[in-house]
Amino acid sequence: MSNEVECWGIFEITLKGPNYGNPFIDVKLKAEFRHNDVVFEPEGFYDGEGLYRIRFMPNALGLWTYITKSNHNELDGITGQFNCTLPSKGNHGPVRVWDTYHFAYEDGTPYFPVGTTCYAWIHQGEDLERQTLETLRKAPFNKMRFCVFPKHYIFNQNEPTYYPFNGSLSKGWDFSHFNPRFWRHLEHRVGDLLKLGVEADLILFHPYDRWGFSCMDAASDERYLRYTIARLAAYRNIWWSIANEYDIMKSKTMADWDRFFQIIQQRDPYQHLRSVHNCIEFYDHRKPWVTHASIQYQNLDYSTVVAWREKYRKPIIIDECGYEGNIHDGWGNLSPQELVRRHWEGIARGVYVGHGETYLHPEDVLWWSKGGALYGESPERIAFLRRILEEASETGLEPIDFGWDVACAGKKDEYYLLYFGIHQPAERHLNLPEDNYFKIDIIDTWQMTVNPIEGSFKGKCSIKLPGKPYIALRIHKEKN
Amino acid sequence: MSNEVECWGIFEITLKGPNYGNPFIDVKLKAEFRHNDVVFEPEGFYDGEGLYRIRFMPNALGLWTYITKSNHNELDGITGQFNCTLPSKGNHGPVRVWDTYHFAYEDGTPYFPVGTTCYAWIHQGEDLERQTLETLRKAPFNKMRFCVFPKHYIFNQNEPTYYPFNGSLSKGWDFSHFNPRFWRHLEHRVGDLLKLGVEADLILFHPYDRWGFSCMDAASDERYLRYTIARLAAYRNIWWSIANEYDIMKSKTMADWDRFFQIIQQRDPYQHLRSVHNCIEFYDHRKPWVTHASIQYQNLDYSTVVAWREKYRKPIIIDECGYEGNIHDGWGNLSPQELVRRHWEGIARGVYVGHGETYLHPEDVLWWSKGGALYGESPERIAFLRRILEEASETGLEPIDFGWDVACAGKKDEYYLLYFGIHQPAERHLNLPEDNYFKIDIIDTWQMTVNPIEGSFKGKCSIKLPGKPYIALRIHKEKN
Repeated sequence: MSNEVECWGIFEITLKGPNYGNPFIDVKLKAEFRHNDVVFEPEGFYDGEGLYRIRFMPNALGLWTYITKSNHNELDGITGQFNCTLPSKGNHGPVRVWDTYHFAYEDGTPYFPVGTTCYAWIHQGEDLERQTLETLRKAPFNKMRFCVFPKHYIFNQNEPTYYPFNGSLSKGWDFSHFNPRFWRHLEHRVGDLLKLGVEADLILFHPYDRWGFSCMDAASDERYLRYTIARLAAYRNIWWSIANEYDIMKSKTMADWDRFFQIIQQRDPYQHLRSVHNCIEFYDHRKPWVTHASIQYQNLDYSTVVAWREKYRKPIIIDECGYEGNIHDGWGNLSPQELVRRHWEGIARGVYVGHGETYLHPEDVLWWSKGGALYGESPERIAFLRRILEEASETGLEPIDFGWDVACAGKKDEYYLLYFGIHQPAERHLNLPEDNYFKIDIIDTWQMTVNPIEGSFKGKCSIKLPGKPYIALRIHKEKN
Repeated sequence: MSNEVECWGIFEITLKGPNYGNPFIDVKLKAEFRHNDVVFEPEGFYDGEGLYRIRFMPNALGLWTYITKSNHNELDGITGQFNCTLPSKGNHGPVRVWDTYHFAYEDGTPYFPVGTTCYAWIHQGEDLERQTLETLRKAPFNKMRFCVFPKHYIFNQNEPTYYPFNGSLSKGWDFSHFNPRFWRHLEHRVGDLLKLGVEADLILFHPYDRWGFSCMDAASDERYLRYTIARLAAYRNIWWSIANEYDIMKSKTMADWDRFFQIIQQRDPYQHLRSVHNCIEFYDHRKPWVTHASIQYQNLDYSTVVAWREKYRKPIIIDECGYEGNIHDGWGNLSPQELVRRHWEGIARGVYVGHGETYLHPEDVLWWSKGGALYGESPERIAFLRRILEEASETGLEPIDFGWDVACAGKKDEYYLLYFGIHQPAERHLNLPEDNYFKIDIIDTWQMTVNPIEGSFKGKCSIKLPGKPYIALRIHKEKN
């Protein structure tokens, strides 16, 4: 145990304890971490071979003390302390909701979610998983959606390297015995993402299952959730995604989903972001335990999305809008132009959109599920969009009415991002504020060019445009 | 007066009568045309200079007799007869609703509406109007939407050549005195379209008005409608479009629109097609006087259109889905790809879609309003689509569920037209009927190619596709 841990880093207590009976059930263990008047009580977990661990993510500089609590004497009443130091470069803390509809790291740095999805990437073995990480290193994504459990689906027939529980597919599983090798692997991957600056949007349940992990009993579900929290909540890049396509999991009810949210809300000391992802029917994201709406939406029409902001009053992430690819199913055969269009349509309406890729592959290694390499043309355009967003301002973009036929988000009187999508105007009449001059850049979102229009503009004005699709305008107040 | 008229041609009675007072109001005139037990009673009209005319479109071969009826002795009780002969080549009679959702000419020949719009083309003077007709001669369109009244709108500031009433913009109009020159010009243009095989979807009212024709009193509205019917209903290619964007005409109420429909329903002896076109709010097309829904719909998403069929139980024509062009407004700057996509999306869902074009022009001659030349890339693709439709079968295409992610219309177990739109599948799994073999053609709707896939298919099968957008499949039962 080190006596120094950076803020939002992981402090870990390792203890020797009983390795008889079923330690996963028999042993209760937590620690009380204290800094001035602030107390956190993370639960510990059994890691096999008589070893118990308690992980903690401090959120304030200076001295922290702790004392363990357990129903086993040898694990109870152990005390200690550590010093929480300044965060290292690139460590901005966990991501939080900011200004109702947006996100920021805990230190206040803006966070624009630019996510991708590789559902089962951690179940593909060392070589492919390393390739995925290498791909991510060069990609624009700062969030990854992926599942704890392995996945059974089209293009996904392989067995995982590790299983979360003791047992086997043929003989059945003992849901009361976690398999520490599986969990160590998972947390290493979460740590790998952390090093790349990628948030781990961890999917706790999903329907694509031949092993039975989608239909455990209620006690096993809860034990699983608490164990996951005990092991992973101290990773600052964790987001909890209760489920992927919750609405097609026949073995669970709405009461189950509410309960899972509440277990996590109650047990996660750090209150990481919580969401649940639909297939067709949206979850009621107004419920108090939901931090942001995680939405699958395959429709072409994005004029509807502003209403979700108004309904849920939370950040909206359309983290499944379809995938760039060429498989047989409509969700997985969008052109890169169309995927990039959906990103811009969302951003220019004050919501966020996620990436995914499903190009047919000779060994069925499709990014959307297994990771590996990216073959598409959308990632570099999404990188370009991310740069535009980061250049925009420190604040999130709010939808602004600039006419029925153009998406617009920005900050009134300061900054406007207009997006014309499939439209191809060769000119546009604008109605800008009268009391300031504005500069206008023409952005070709496909060619990734930014061309300033000569001159300054205010009030009613008219500009020439390229007369082709996928054009955006950036209109920003002239600096005095 | 000729004593021979082809079926669905025009038989016209010309009479000398009073040219004092106001013949448009004072003189009542109609004729009773009789063939066996069938009687039609078209109204006559005053054509100026003491001349009165009664026009009639016979719909049955053989002898027709007539007798005029008037409140003026010199016009009353005049009798005569003519022989109705076989229709000439290309004359299939007026277009009727066929099989609930489709159209056919009265002789049973299928009619697939492939319309375009040139709102004010008849108000542009001889040269431009001739050019419009010459363009139409080479274009794929078999229906034209256009207005009786001149149009005042962006790119439309010129005065018309003729006015429908006596008077002037500065001194005002006498709505009780029609200007025969205007009406002769209009009916010549309807006749010009007829010669080209183009239905005249005649818009009777519209809001874009600086002359006052959109806000006449109720008596003048009715007189105008009856005069229009008396002059034009005998043209077999006439369709009545009560209004363009009826819902933004502040001077009229819903009761007015219903009344206009009923006047036409009551007065038109031939029951030509009747519709009304919206801006935003759809008229209730279930009303009994509506023969088909005429719809403006600017949205990208066409999955909604099948519901309109189910709601209205009538043919659906989206005759304004946006225009290929590059003007500043979103309705007028669709790419040709997008306009063609909307046509296919509609057709592959059992509805019809119309064309229009709005490219900026140095003299403001935009096809959508003034006619002239076509500059776009969509017309030849629409011609290609029309050929595909005409090759399809004699029957209209009905929507068929072939999966959520593809539009499909056809005739169950016989013929399927699938359209993938923006999707780019490189393969597709199909579930065809088990009891017949089918041939499959891959249609590139943009490149306008049709490539048969080798072999025959039935039941569950999988095919390779080009992996690019705008692809359709034509699946047809193998001939025995």
